[in-house]
Amino acid sequence: MTNLATPPLTPSNAAAPIPWEDRPAVSTEVLWRYSANPVIPRDLIPTSNSIFNSAVVRYGDAFAGVFRADSNTRKMQLHAGRSADAVNWELDHEPISFLCDDDEVGNFVYGYDPRVVWIEDRYWITWCNGYHGPTIGVGYTHDFKTFHQIENAYLPFNRNGVLFPRKINDAYVMLSRPSDNGHTPFGEIFVSHSPDMIHWGRHRHVMKPEQPWEWTKIGAGPIPIETPEGWLIFYHGVLTSCNGYVYSFGAALLDLDEPWKVLYRGAPYLISPQRDYECVGDVPNVTFPCAALHDEPTGRLAIYYGAADTVTALAFGYVDEVIDFVKSTHQDNPVSQV
Amino acid sequence: MTNLATPPLTPSNAAAPIPWEDRPAVSTEVLWRYSANPVIPRDLIPTSNSIFNSAVVRYGDAFAGVFRADSNTRKMQLHAGRSADAVNWELDHEPISFLCDDDEVGNFVYGYDPRVVWIEDRYWITWCNGYHGPTIGVGYTHDFKTFHQIENAYLPFNRNGVLFPRKINDAYVMLSRPSDNGHTPFGEIFVSHSPDMIHWGRHRHVMKPEQPWEWTKIGAGPIPIETPEGWLIFYHGVLTSCNGYVYSFGAALLDLDEPWKVLYRGAPYLISPQRDYECVGDVPNVTFPCAALHDEPTGRLAIYYGAADTVTALAFGYVDEVIDFVKSTHQDNPVSQV
Amino acid sequence: MTNLATPPLTPSNAAAPIPWEDRPAVSTEVLWRYSANPVIPRDLIPTSNSIFNSAVVRYGDAFAGVFRADSNTRKMQLHAGRSADAVNWELDHEPISFLCDDDEVGNFVYGYDPRVVWIEDRYWITWCNGYHGPTIGVGYTHDFKTFHQIENAYLPFNRNGVLFPRKINDAYVMLSRPSDNGHTPFGEIFVSHSPDMIHWGRHRHVMKPEQPWEWTKIGAGPIPIETPEGWLIFYHGVLTSCNGYVYSFGAALLDLDEPWKVLYRGAPYLISPQRDYECVGDVPNVTFPCAALHDEPTGRLAIYYGAADTVTALAFGYVDEVIDFVKSTHQDNPVSQV
Amino acid sequence: MTNLATPPLTPSNAAAPIPWEDRPAVSTEVLWRYSANPVIPRDLIPTSNSIFNSAVVRYGDAFAGVFRADSNTRKMQLHAGRSADAVNWELDHEPISFLCDDDEVGNFVYGYDPRVVWIEDRYWITWCNGYHGPTIGVGYTHDFKTFHQIENAYLPFNRNGVLFPRKINDAYVMLSRPSDNGHTPFGEIFVSHSPDMIHWGRHRHVMKPEQPWEWTKIGAGPIPIETPEGWLIFYHGVLTSCNGYVYSFGAALLDLDEPWKVLYRGAPYLISPQRDYECVGDVPNVTFPCAALHDEPTGRLAIYYGAADTVTALAFGYVDEVIDFVKSTHQDNPVSQV
Amino acid sequence: MTNLATPPLTPSNAAAPIPWEDRPAVSTEVLWRYSANPVIPRDLIPTSNSIFNSAVVRYGDAFAGVFRADSNTRKMQLHAGRSADAVNWELDHEPISFLCDDDEVGNFVYGYDPRVVWIEDRYWITWCNGYHGPTIGVGYTHDFKTFHQIENAYLPFNRNGVLFPRKINDAYVMLSRPSDNGHTPFGEIFVSHSPDMIHWGRHRHVMKPEQPWEWTKIGAGPIPIETPEGWLIFYHGVLTSCNGYVYSFGAALLDLDEPWKVLYRGAPYLISPQRDYECVGDVPNVTFPCAALHDEPTGRLAIYYGAADTVTALAFGYVDEVIDFVKSTHQDNPVSQV
Amino acid sequence: MTNLATPPLTPSNAAAPIPWEDRPAVSTEVLWRYSANPVIPRDLIPTSNSIFNSAVVRYGDAFAGVFRADSNTRKMQLHAGRSADAVNWELDHEPISFLCDDDEVGNFVYGYDPRVVWIEDRYWITWCNGYHGPTIGVGYTHDFKTFHQIENAYLPFNRNGVLFPRKINDAYVMLSRPSDNGHTPFGEIFVSHSPDMIHWGRHRHVMKPEQPWEWTKIGAGPIPIETPEGWLIFYHGVLTSCNGYVYSFGAALLDLDEPWKVLYRGAPYLISPQRDYECVGDVPNVTFPCAALHDEPTGRLAIYYGAADTVTALAFGYVDEVIDFVKSTHQDNPVSQV
Repeated sequence: MTNLATPPLTPSNAAAPIPWEDRPAVSTEVLWRYSANPVIPRDLIPTSNSIFNSAVVRYGDAFAGVFRADSNTRKMQLHAGRSADAVNWELDHEPISFLCDDDEVGNFVYGYDPRVVWIEDRYWITWCNGYHGPTIGVGYTHDFKTFHQIENAYLPFNRNGVLFPRKINDAYVMLSRPSDNGHTPFGEIFVSHSPDMIHWGRHRHVMKPEQPWEWTKIGAGPIPIETPEGWLIFYHGVLTSCNGYVYSFGAALLDLDEPWKVLYRGAPYLISPQRDYECVGDVPNVTFPCAALHDEPTGRLAIYYGAADTVTALAFGYVDEVIDFVKSTHQDNPVSQV
Repeated sequence: MTNLATPPLTPSNAAAPIPWEDRPAVSTEVLWRYSANPVIPRDLIPTSNSIFNSAVVRYGDAFAGVFRADSNTRKMQLHAGRSADAVNWELDHEPISFLCDDDEVGNFVYGYDPRVVWIEDRYWITWCNGYHGPTIGVGYTHDFKTFHQIENAYLPFNRNGVLFPRKINDAYVMLSRPSDNGHTPFGEIFVSHSPDMIHWGRHRHVMKPEQPWEWTKIGAGPIPIETPEGWLIFYHGVLTSCNGYVYSFGAALLDLDEPWKVLYRGAPYLISPQRDYECVGDVPNVTFPCAALHDEPTGRLAIYYGAADTVTALAFGYVDEVIDFVKSTHQDNPVSQV
Repeated sequence: MTNLATPPLTPSNAAAPIPWEDRPAVSTEVLWRYSANPVIPRDLIPTSNSIFNSAVVRYGDAFAGVFRADSNTRKMQLHAGRSADAVNWELDHEPISFLCDDDEVGNFVYGYDPRVVWIEDRYWITWCNGYHGPTIGVGYTHDFKTFHQIENAYLPFNRNGVLFPRKINDAYVMLSRPSDNGHTPFGEIFVSHSPDMIHWGRHRHVMKPEQPWEWTKIGAGPIPIETPEGWLIFYHGVLTSCNGYVYSFGAALLDLDEPWKVLYRGAPYLISPQRDYECVGDVPNVTFPCAALHDEPTGRLAIYYGAADTVTALAFGYVDEVIDFVKSTHQDNPVSQV
Repeated sequence: MTNLATPPLTPSNAAAPIPWEDRPAVSTEVLWRYSANPVIPRDLIPTSNSIFNSAVVRYGDAFAGVFRADSNTRKMQLHAGRSADAVNWELDHEPISFLCDDDEVGNFVYGYDPRVVWIEDRYWITWCNGYHGPTIGVGYTHDFKTFHQIENAYLPFNRNGVLFPRKINDAYVMLSRPSDNGHTPFGEIFVSHSPDMIHWGRHRHVMKPEQPWEWTKIGAGPIPIETPEGWLIFYHGVLTSCNGYVYSFGAALLDLDEPWKVLYRGAPYLISPQRDYECVGDVPNVTFPCAALHDEPTGRLAIYYGAADTVTALAFGYVDEVIDFVKSTHQDNPVSQV
Repeated sequence: MTNLATPPLTPSNAAAPIPWEDRPAVSTEVLWRYSANPVIPRDLIPTSNSIFNSAVVRYGDAFAGVFRADSNTRKMQLHAGRSADAVNWELDHEPISFLCDDDEVGNFVYGYDPRVVWIEDRYWITWCNGYHGPTIGVGYTHDFKTFHQIENAYLPFNRNGVLFPRKINDAYVMLSRPSDNGHTPFGEIFVSHSPDMIHWGRHRHVMKPEQPWEWTKIGAGPIPIETPEGWLIFYHGVLTSCNGYVYSFGAALLDLDEPWKVLYRGAPYLISPQRDYECVGDVPNVTFPCAALHDEPTGRLAIYYGAADTVTALAFGYVDEVIDFVKSTHQDNPVSQV
Repeated sequence: MTNLATPPLTPSNAAAPIPWEDRPAVSTEVLWRYSANPVIPRDLIPTSNSIFNSAVVRYGDAFAGVFRADSNTRKMQLHAGRSADAVNWELDHEPISFLCDDDEVGNFVYGYDPRVVWIEDRYWITWCNGYHGPTIGVGYTHDFKTFHQIENAYLPFNRNGVLFPRKINDAYVMLSRPSDNGHTPFGEIFVSHSPDMIHWGRHRHVMKPEQPWEWTKIGAGPIPIETPEGWLIFYHGVLTSCNGYVYSFGAALLDLDEPWKVLYRGAPYLISPQRDYECVGDVPNVTFPCAALHDEPTGRLAIYYGAADTVTALAFGYVDEVIDFVKSTHQDNPVSQV
């Protein structure tokens, strides 16, 4: 790993308010959508076909992020972005060009569905990276201007690599979803450990589909949120109808020390594709969360999710209420026959 | 079969007017849609994901029904409902819990696409019932509060079991569509006979796909309507486009005494997915009829159909006009090559 | 059902010795193969492509049977046959032409995999019968010359319909394997009941694949053999390799009164395709049992099985040893992951 | 070929202005959509289910065309139409009935996706024609009233047969896309030559998918436009998402004398499904161009494209700008891994 | 076409006896196998993996041929061969290198399943030729040393191109089987016409699968044999078992002047895979005829067929007996349901 | 890792002669088969269905190994074995029971296709291990009696994990073939590095299919053999015929220091399924090498390979000749179109 300059900004430098909108009076939903959705249109960049499944973090007293912006050739690329309020974004028109010591690893074929997390001294980025098939690319930045790429975490085929925001028992820890080389019709969540962000091992199975809404496959979403009740994760689940995949998302709590142990898992989805911008677009019927901002003092959550693989939307909620939901709807022995 | 109390209400006790709206001035359609569609929204029940493919009948001087209401875990369930006008519905928040003498049969795994019909002394319900695969569940009620379940009619795999509203030649008679255990890409309509609603036999093939709009498979819809011209049936047909299934529906006339003989069959569909609530939803491009109310004095028809596997919609027409349509568009030797 | 003449011959009229060959000295197999296999060559009939999956019974002081003999157009047909010793067979060159009151049912499209059993007053035949897809045809004979066909037992799609050799609790009882309309990649065994051999109901699930050798599907084989320990059944199981299906067969014991309850089930197969005539032929790697002769005084069994869907072979064993095998290798909770 | 009467009208008889609307002020798109899209609704004909993928040409001082109008049985048919302004169309209610010397060829099973072009002395029509599978039907007309059909150009299976508007090196020349008999998941563009419009040979490969938006298959669209820079072609490309095909279209320049040589090819799509009428309909997410009107003095283009396989839409642009786009976005060695 | 030297040898120069072996005494088969099969082993060439599906003709007073010899990289190639008796063959170790005026056409990617026929002044060779997919390559030779390649006859995807041995109504005539780009699961025989061996048109459908043994697809085999009763063709048919394709072959008679009209068609196969060398090899269960030698004075036939896609075998028969077989087993309305 | 006792025996303790048989006089093959194949029959263990794809090493002055022995339930298991001459083997009747510190990792679901190699101080075993899908299990032994299991090397889905026989640049190095969860129709070879046999990273792509015989997928076989010319590897390749997979094997040379660089690769296969015991069995047409014994003084090689997934066979050769073969048949730019 290269010698690092002092990072100029960290997520804790300031307390910018995260996006927020109160729950509508008529709503009893645990998560509710932003009334001005989508927050990022498909054409925010002149040559973009779509912008979605994107990673947003606090950055100094403002916000930064890494965004999936497919070009008008439909090439999947990553772009950096900045925002003062996490709602109105400016994205670099040029895709991120990672610096990498090894030409073969650094040769960018495609990249999508990024996640970003501050660990220790820098912002780490993981994404689905094309290296003879999709696998998990790993990189980091200090300033969202210069980006470094290190080794791919796994062999292909893998997607939805999501780092925990701190080491656990002295190891970096990553969730991921082994897959195949196409529109994989199966998928379960695993966790892996690393001493150095280069070599990964001690792989453990975390969870598999249980409910009909997630029957085809599941995959981790935003960076896990540490709570006294456990790691709160949001994850997407896919149901296969006769007309294709339907992507919804729900939540679960993982053990703080042994994160492959599921403490509670909410049986229903939290958000499923129901609005026009979620049902109509390049891939109909997709709601796919990739990032969450958490305001600890208020317990507020702002969740960014891709809609119809076309635009980026926002949903809001309270951590405590989501935890209540997860615990109260947990099923010990879900019926597995569908 | 258990000993039955006197049923408190029958479909003939009173003459509640069925839903109605005149054909729009500009329309020449045989069936026309209700202007306030959908009549049942996806979230009429707090925990429902969608309400569709539902069965409505006269019940005393009002209306009752059995509704497919998938929960927010996407579990497929049946709920009872009541309405004074058959447009505004109140649905039980809890799914129907059938009483059953045999625990293995009565163990509810999933149920969907119900039909309800009054025969002799009670309301019979048939539905697609999960018993080691989808088959036809059979039950009955007198009051839409207490529901009894008897034996499944057939071995798996079967769907769209639809009873005739009276015995024919001393036998209960049911239409059904043998299938497989997935999103079956084939399907033809058969008819079966039973002396006791328990044992079924004398299976006869009724009809197979003929027109392009029904090329993939067909299945019976509402309870057949007895007319001097024969049993009027509405049935859905499925066309497979490069982007999945398209469910439309049409009509045919079956012989009164030998209902496996098709007298006439309308070549075009009557309704195909063309409105937003039919084209956009959990399963795009579905119009799927499960019930029809028939006002004999006026000949009016109100047909309930699921739209996009998400909501319930209504269409109107006249029995006589539908019969005219079926007879006038009948093709003796439809071209079978597509 | 037509009025029946007195049957001239029954299986109990005489005690012809069943085929037999002692277990080879070096063998520890529960079932062992006949050294002169195959007993029926593919071309025993001048126009036959293959003769296999056939049903053999005692008939008076000799033997008779119904054989699957695919013609040299590869049409699947049933032929009657007779033998003095159950090893050397004479088959009618013309396929069986069933008498049937209903032209549509009696219109023979194809028939295969017959089973024959004496119940009460006649020999019943069940087979996979083409009626808008494969289903279970039912017929009977008194003399293996005149054959009568009655109603198909089930709606399509079904295969491997096997009658129990007596009524249980006053009902005819049949095992079967619901399927789809192709080379079905799934299959479990069910049991159904009938008061009259026409109408069937009270369907119960019996067993599903458990071991790797039967992972794809299972289906009943010869007529169940009544023993004090329960109904002894032989059944085939299919494993899917990267080069197709492998058909082996094993055994299980079902409850005498409630035959949908499996008392014991042998974990290993008894016979799998290992000899050239089982591995090479029209369908490589098939051993498929359809009939068993049981000599009660000695406990000897002679099992007829189709080999490579081309010829018919024989295997021998003792009922007691098979029962021991089934009980001793039974696994209470077989690992289900493969 | 039959003896032809003098054609009453040719495309050069008069100069009707083609449809036009200036590029919206905010737009930087090379092609922009007509603000009143769709120009042809699905139900312009009383019995039509949809009208799309249609061919429009100048005809005397007005316009004529051949339209794909699927009926309400979903049968695919061709209808003639006429228009004074190429925006408001009158379509014959009856499908085209081709005159043909050979009954087997002339037996119309289905026809779709027509193209029309004036060559020498008549309007030639090519379309996807059902003859034991889809192939390229060939016919001609002088007046859009009487239509003649000659031999199919190729053996099945083929689609998207598009004639060049003049002979090249003394041969008729046609682009086409060999396919299979279903929703073909592959497809590349070839060119063939004919001395007589009956026999075709000297087949050459023209181009294959290169960019992600066209990864599954590509096929020619409107009649090629001759420019000093080469033949300008618009062509559709298909990307397969987990929810099906997405049809976009782009452009390329072919060598004037050796049209199997691609001079330049625009890397991005020009139009992809982004509007409701393109994303919602019988086949969601389709934009499929079949005709272009070119006003040489101004360089204006009006491109007709089917939207969602349901309606017909219009887009505008300038030939020069499209050529600039094709040349400036050309990639010499497009990355082939996706 | 290049200027041709006088051919040194023609098939009529001499009358070498064709291979022959009398029908075995016990056999009643219409065609019987050579007792010394296979005639060509898989390793006749040092680097060959397999030699099969090969084309043999009279050449002067001896025999010559073009053979499919897949190399030990499993590349499909064509090799020339010569034999004095048509049983013992010498094959060139180097594959045929065709001379071709056009580099793109002449670039040999792969070639397989050749047929050879003398027409007018030279030996024509057709084969399945790789040009952006399989299509029909066309070439010729005068001496089996120098080979010329001209244009591919059709667009991809096509296989089994078989020329008639003379012009019919002034046109070259070719049978072929349009396919897709893989192990095509469908296939019917068409005929096409050409004035010049370059351009092909007037495509007519000849026949489709009818019997179970040919249910998946059919394709032409050896060069048609002219008889007073019509063109006698042998053709292969494929049945799909649960373990893959089974290739058998049968025969039919086509009208002499309108060869797309089938006069008679034998219902059973003539040869199906039954011997070890047909059932075991690189592709089990294949008998695939590509050539036939006909001795007119005696009516003898020697048919060369590939066995298990590994070796080449011989079968014998009499033209008259085959014609009798075709006519006597013809079925007017074969049952099409399987 | 547990504290290890001094290993009693190592591969270098003695020089037992490896199995050998001279090349047959008539043969020009680079590798030739043992005349007494198969060396291990399917039923060497009383309850085994098949014994194949097995790992053999020198052990003291004799030989030991780990064998895939599928049981007669077709469960895939590993058994230890010992032999004085590496031809006649004694296998433990009980499968290996690995000691493991972690119950979840050590829970044996299934294991197959083992490889064994001595590195530093012990024998390492890698195999395809069932842990929520196939992945690479890792264990070790000192005495082939007690076996220890450590962490799985990778996330599922992976197969054919093969260790190099020494550290390279201070890292353990493993070849593997990422796959999916079924009969994977794709597969390329990668290499990964580990500092501790627990965590793996620095994954590099090594090679992909190039020749037709390996078109579907490739995977590493025996432990790489260090030679002055590079690491000599044998690997299997799969061709998909219309009747399934054909497994052959060939060889290549990898760079000694950067083993992801292929120096030379033999274009033809060395062994393909041609003998009865390779073509007929549980999976027809498989030759799959898993181990090689190398006698350095003589350069002799004895290669163990599974045949038809049923038995184990032996082939012989010389390292030098294999290297010559690899270098002389190397193709710089193999044609990639098939």
